Amino acid sequence: MIRHVVHFTWSDAADDARRAETVAALRRLPEQVPGSLGFTVAPDAGLVEGNAHAVLVADFPDAEAFRRYATDPVHLAVIAEHVRPYLAARSAVQYEL
Amino acid sequence: MIRHVVHFTWSDAADDARRAETVAALRRLPEQVPGSLGFTVAPDAGLVEGNAHAVLVADFPDAEAFRRYATDPVHLAVIAEHVRPYLAARSAVQYEL
Repeated sequence: MIRHVVHFTWSDAADDARRAETVAALRRLPEQVPGSLGFTVAPDAGLVEGNAHAVLVADFPDAEAFRRYATDPVHLAVIAEHVRPYLAARSAVQYEL
Repeated sequence: MIRHVVHFTWSDAADDARRAETVAALRRLPEQVPGSLGFTVAPDAGLVEGNAHAVLVADFPDAEAFRRYATDPVHLAVIAEHVRPYLAARSAVQYEL
């Protein structure tokens, strides 16, 4: 199994309402793009200064299922509309579970 | 429950052997520092260009247990010896499970 983990840091262009809208759009992804076995999007808990603002954790049965998700046109459209315009930084890892 | 997720990007100062040694040192942390319920350290699977190099995922029963771990002197010593000298970038999130 492949776990895909993304950290998002929003830019100042994204106010609280916009950040909540982006998190909601990311949470709708598993309804729109098939292939994930588990899918969590959560805001940072605010325990430590300097953290990223939100995390996405998605599990896939194998690397091929992850690649299909990553390159799915609906997924790319959601990123283009809801993520990229508000992104200051992004960090990603995929690892074998 | 609090999940703590860190992405590490190693600097060029860290060759493959050094990166493996750092991952091994991080994997020993739950034996040395109490409080975590689950603890995983994994290298990036190499599926996507531009990813971070490794991920640490650790679960704690609550924010207080996470804070005790984060500020434990043994933990801080492991970071000072095995992580910080080889770190190009770090991204962290804690979120409510």
